[in-house]
Amino acid sequence: MSKARGPYSKGVAKREEILRVALEVVSENGYHNTLNRDIAERAGLSPTGLMHYFGSKEELFIEVLRARDRHDVATFWDPRRDFRGFLDVIAHNATVPGLVQLYIEYSAEASFGKHPAHSFFIERHERTRSFMREAIQKAQYAGELGPNVQTEEAANLIIASADGLQQQWLLDPSVDMVAHLERLWDLIRAGSWADEKSPLVQEAQAFRQ
Amino acid sequence: MSKARGPYSKGVAKREEILRVALEVVSENGYHNTLNRDIAERAGLSPTGLMHYFGSKEELFIEVLRARDRHDVATFWDPRRDFRGFLDVIAHNATVPGLVQLYIEYSAEASFGKHPAHSFFIERHERTRSFMREAIQKAQYAGELGPNVQTEEAANLIIASADGLQQQWLLDPSVDMVAHLERLWDLIRAGSWADEKSPLVQEAQAFRQ
Repeated sequence: MSKARGPYSKGVAKREEILRVALEVVSENGYHNTLNRDIAERAGLSPTGLMHYFGSKEELFIEVLRARDRHDVATFWDPRRDFRGFLDVIAHNATVPGLVQLYIEYSAEASFGKHPAHSFFIERHERTRSFMREAIQKAQYAGELGPNVQTEEAANLIIASADGLQQQWLLDPSVDMVAHLERLWDLIRAGSWADEKSPLVQEAQAFRQ
Repeated sequence: MSKARGPYSKGVAKREEILRVALEVVSENGYHNTLNRDIAERAGLSPTGLMHYFGSKEELFIEVLRARDRHDVATFWDPRRDFRGFLDVIAHNATVPGLVQLYIEYSAEASFGKHPAHSFFIERHERTRSFMREAIQKAQYAGELGPNVQTEEAANLIIASADGLQQQWLLDPSVDMVAHLERLWDLIRAGSWADEKSPLVQEAQAFRQ
């Protein structure tokens, strides 16, 4: 960021501090219980002062989601970028329900084209999908997954399941998100080694016609 | 409904009409672009008159979701209650983005305990899960699925994927929700026939240790 040089650097540092504080407050209180005032107070600012750094509550929260992704990728994912790293992120999510609420809420809002989170979620989905494709291919090179994987569809299914499971988990915290995603991976693995020419599988496929 | 008898029946009929109208308006305009005024107008009521039948916008929209489920189950699902019926509901969803928006928005809101949609989504999830377990068992009886299915987890994965795919589809209408869910079913099928004792599968499993 070019703004990090010269007279702007103090502002950039304060922005970073606000994001760190906002991440904490949302993790502790959840999205719906977080007021601008709470974040401003903990960052030693007035609510108006806070809005000097972020134009709107939406902009602030999108930056919170972005900061969270950076943190998760740095801590759990990079440079391994494999499925285990992804599961580590999900396991970590189970410790920060407030952030999962924010993520679920904004990804729903993003589906309405006019919400400022729209382009953030489009880009995020593309990035996650490309990570996931890499993870699948890496597992194929390693021999963990066999040759029969529809990589694009499998990647979308993993991401869709992770999103849906986070929603189920918010409704019922006993849902084990990681165990379910491991199961999905097992299914992808079973499909990847399935011999589509075996009589059993052909017989089963006949039901689809 | 006992209210359908006697002096209440006219009110019940009007309520039904409002729900029908609201379903139409949300299907056409989407959730975020639907005002109470639009629904009231088309039902021949004032906004205040509308609120006489439904205490709040939230209550009205939860009833819209309930009416939509009744319609979908009657049209696509009952009495077959098999996976194909579920896919028919999803294919139908792709023709009513406004309702999918409403569903996604309210299921996100429902994850905050205090929202009036909370108990609706808990009950709905339990019902969908029990349908899905039935669909899996039915496919096993029919010989389409083999013996190795973790029914509970598979049911949750299908529901989670369907929810997550609807979100992906709202962001990118080219996502083929039905094709992805058919792929997931194929994976469950592959897993259901997988011989966990085969050397290939055991070798692959060793990667998990």
